[in-house]
Amino acid sequence: MTARAGVVITGTEVLSGIITDRNGPWLSERLREAGIDLESIVIVGDRREDMLSALEYLAGEKVDVVVTSGGLGPTADDLTAEVVGEFQGRPMVLDEPLEERIAEILRPLMERFPNLDHEAVRISNRKQAVIPDGSTVIEPVGTAPGLVVPPGDELGGPTIVVLPGPPRELHAMWRAAVDTQPFRRATRGAVTYETRVMRLFGIPESEIAADLRAIEEEGVDLSRLEITTCLRRGEIEVATRFEPRAAKTYAKLEQAIAERHGEILYSRDGSTIDDQVAELLADGPHTIATAESCTGGLLAVRLTDRAGSSAYVLGGLVTYSNEAKVALAGVDPALIERVGAVSVEVAEAMADGAISRLGAELGVGITGIAGPDGGTEDKPVGTVCVSVANRDGARLTRRMRLPGNRADIRDRSATVALHLVRRLLLGESDAAAEA
Amino acid sequence: MTARAGVVITGTEVLSGIITDRNGPWLSERLREAGIDLESIVIVGDRREDMLSALEYLAGEKVDVVVTSGGLGPTADDLTAEVVGEFQGRPMVLDEPLEERIAEILRPLMERFPNLDHEAVRISNRKQAVIPDGSTVIEPVGTAPGLVVPPGDELGGPTIVVLPGPPRELHAMWRAAVDTQPFRRATRGAVTYETRVMRLFGIPESEIAADLRAIEEEGVDLSRLEITTCLRRGEIEVATRFEPRAAKTYAKLEQAIAERHGEILYSRDGSTIDDQVAELLADGPHTIATAESCTGGLLAVRLTDRAGSSAYVLGGLVTYSNEAKVALAGVDPALIERVGAVSVEVAEAMADGAISRLGAELGVGITGIAGPDGGTEDKPVGTVCVSVANRDGARLTRRMRLPGNRADIRDRSATVALHLVRRLLLGESDAAAEA
Repeated sequence: MTARAGVVITGTEVLSGIITDRNGPWLSERLREAGIDLESIVIVGDRREDMLSALEYLAGEKVDVVVTSGGLGPTADDLTAEVVGEFQGRPMVLDEPLEERIAEILRPLMERFPNLDHEAVRISNRKQAVIPDGSTVIEPVGTAPGLVVPPGDELGGPTIVVLPGPPRELHAMWRAAVDTQPFRRATRGAVTYETRVMRLFGIPESEIAADLRAIEEEGVDLSRLEITTCLRRGEIEVATRFEPRAAKTYAKLEQAIAERHGEILYSRDGSTIDDQVAELLADGPHTIATAESCTGGLLAVRLTDRAGSSAYVLGGLVTYSNEAKVALAGVDPALIERVGAVSVEVAEAMADGAISRLGAELGVGITGIAGPDGGTEDKPVGTVCVSVANRDGARLTRRMRLPGNRADIRDRSATVALHLVRRLLLGESDAAAEA
Repeated sequence: MTARAGVVITGTEVLSGIITDRNGPWLSERLREAGIDLESIVIVGDRREDMLSALEYLAGEKVDVVVTSGGLGPTADDLTAEVVGEFQGRPMVLDEPLEERIAEILRPLMERFPNLDHEAVRISNRKQAVIPDGSTVIEPVGTAPGLVVPPGDELGGPTIVVLPGPPRELHAMWRAAVDTQPFRRATRGAVTYETRVMRLFGIPESEIAADLRAIEEEGVDLSRLEITTCLRRGEIEVATRFEPRAAKTYAKLEQAIAERHGEILYSRDGSTIDDQVAELLADGPHTIATAESCTGGLLAVRLTDRAGSSAYVLGGLVTYSNEAKVALAGVDPALIERVGAVSVEVAEAMADGAISRLGAELGVGITGIAGPDGGTEDKPVGTVCVSVANRDGARLTRRMRLPGNRADIRDRSATVALHLVRRLLLGESDAAAEA
C-alpha cells in the first residue's frame, strides 16, 4: 500500500496553451522523490465548475493527496481557496493574524508606489486571508499564502495542498507543505522508489522492445520494474522506477542491456550526451571549435549551454555559404567544386579548419542538406556528413541519411556530432587515419 | 451551443516530468482556432485503468470530442488504441491493408539495419494495425496510424481522436483528423472564431493591462473580445479571439494599441520577429553575418531556422573566447584590454568584423554575461551589448541588463538583436553614426 496523489493546474492561460506549465512536471518529480505515486495531472481554466469536476475526478481515483497550483492571487478570477473549501465542506473564515502578516509583506510595495489605491489593496489583502476553516497555512513567499486542507470531518477523501502558481513561490512553499502534520498523516503509506535512466544511441526503439521480451524470457522478472522507453532527439531513453528491494533485478536488466549493446549503451546514470561531452572536455581539459553548415550554429549553442563552457569552447564558424567555407574554414574551393559542399571530404576540411583557425585541440565539421529543398537523387534531403578530428590526426567521419523534417535533421546532426566527439575523446578513431 | 473537447496526454515519461508535454498546448490552440472549447487537459501514465478513468472523467463532463496523444508505438506499454476501443465498446480488429501500408513504411528501416529481428518487427507492425472496429484511420506520418473512434452504437458520449505522441506526427495527423466525417459530425456545434495576434517589444506586461482598462473606459466594448496577454521571450503577445461579428470592435482595439505604442507594436498579423527579419532580408535581398559571444550561435541558429535562409545568411562567427574575438572577428586586443570584452565598443567591432570577414552587407555583434558566474558590480550577470551595422556605416547599438537565468538571457539577447536588425533594415540608425 503506497500513497497516491493527483495534481490540478489551474489557469486559463495555461489551458489555452499561452503559458507552458512547469509546475506539473516539477511537482511530479517531487512526489516521486517523496515515494508518492502520481495518478494524473489535470489542467483546467479558472472556472469554479471545472475545478470542482477535476477535484471530484481525483477523489474518485482514491488519491490520498491533491496538489493544486495557481488561483491564489488577489483578483476575482482567483478562486482556488474558495473552491477547495467548498469541496472539503469547510466554511471560509478570515484569519486575522494572516491578514496582518500579508499587510506587512505589502508595506514596502505601498511605499514604493504611493499612488496605489490603498483601499483596493486592503481588500485584496483581506481576500487572501480568507481561508477554509481548519486549514494549515503555508507562509507566503510572494504575497499569497498556501494551504493544507484536510477533508471535512464527515467527508473522507484527499487532503488538498493549495499552492500559488509562480514557480519560485510554489517550490519554496512545497517544501514547507510536506513538513506539515496533515500532509504527513495523509501520505503515511509512501514508499521511496529509485529511478534510473539508461540512454542508447544508434538503434531503433523496436529493438529495445524486443530486448525486453528476450530478457524476460531469460528469467529476469521485469514485472518488479516499471520500465518506460522513449525516443528523444534520435536517442533511446530507458527510464525505470523500482522499489529498493528490486535493486538486484534492475542490476540484471542493466547488465543484460549492456551485454547486448556494448558502446551503444552510452549512459547508465541518466547523463545526456551533452553532459558527457561537457564533462570529458572539462576534465581533459581539451579545447574545441566547430565549423557548421546545415546546423547553423546549433552544435555551438549546445556546447555553450552550460555555465563554465568558456573553459573549453573556443568558438565556432557558421559557414553557411560556400564562400564562408572557403574564407572562414579554409576549405579548398577546388575540393568543393570536385566533391560538392555536402561530402565527407568537405566535412573533414571544415573540422581541420576549425582546429587551425581557432587554435583548438578538437574540431568538428558538419555539412548537410536539412531541406525541405536542395536534395538530389545522389544526396537526398537528410544527407549529412560529420567529421570530428584532433590536432594529432585522430579522426571520426560519418556520412548519414537522417529522417525527419528540417528541425529534426538539424537537431540530430548536432547529436551525432556530440557522440563522435565523445568517442574520439574516449580514444576511438577511424582506421588508417592519415598522419 | 458550442462544441466542447477534452485532451488526454498519455505517457509515463510525461507524467513523471521527464519529458515536457508540448502536445497539450498545441492542441489547445488548434481547438480554439476550430471554435471548440477546451474543458480540461489530463495527463496520465501508460496504465490501462488510469487512461480509462481519464476518459470517464471527460465523458462525464459531456465533451463532444476527446483528443488523445501518445501510446501508439510498437511496444507493450503502448495501450491507447486498445483502451479507446474498450471504452467505446468496439472490438479490436486487424486492418490488413493498414498492416501492409505500415510494412511498406518500415521497409527502408529494415534495409538500413539488416541485423534487426525481422520477426519482432513484423509483430510490432501487426500490433499497430489492430484497431477498434468502425474507426476511421488517419494515415501514419511516422509508423503509427491515428484513429477517429466514434462511440459504440448503444453508448453515446464523445468521439475520440487518437494521435501519436511525437509532435511532428501529431501536427500533420491532426489536420487530417479534423477533415474526417466522424470528427465533423461530433463538432457540428462549433462556432468559427477569428484569432488575431499582436506583438509588442519594449514595454512591460502591466502597461498592456493598464491600456486595456483605459481603452474600455473610452467606450470600446472589450467584453466582445476574448483577450489574453502574455510575456513570451521578452515580448508581449496579445492574442484575441472573437466571433466574426465583433470584427469592428477588434479593429478599434488594434487602432487604440497602435496609437498608444507606435513602433513598439511591431506585428499586427501574428508574425514573429524571426518571420519579419527573414522576410526583410529575403526581399532586399540583403546578406547578413553574425559574430556572437554569450549567445554561442543562437542568433545564427534562429536566422537559419527557415528553409531558403541560405539566400541571405552568409554565415557567422562564434567568438566565445577573447582570442577568437581577435583572430576571427578582427577585434583589436588593445580595445578588449581597455574596455573589456563585454562593451558596446567590442560589440561594434564584432559587427564590423562579421561584415568584413564574411563580405556581408549587415553584421551583428553580441557580447554579454549570461551567468550564472562572471558578473561584476559594474557589469552584473545579464549585461549584454548588441550592435547591428551595415556596410554604409548605419548602426544601432544597445547596452542592456536582461533579467532571467542563463537560458533566458541568451534567448532574449538574440531577440533584441533581431529587433535591431529589423529597425536597421527599416531605415533607423543611431544619431551621429560615424562614416
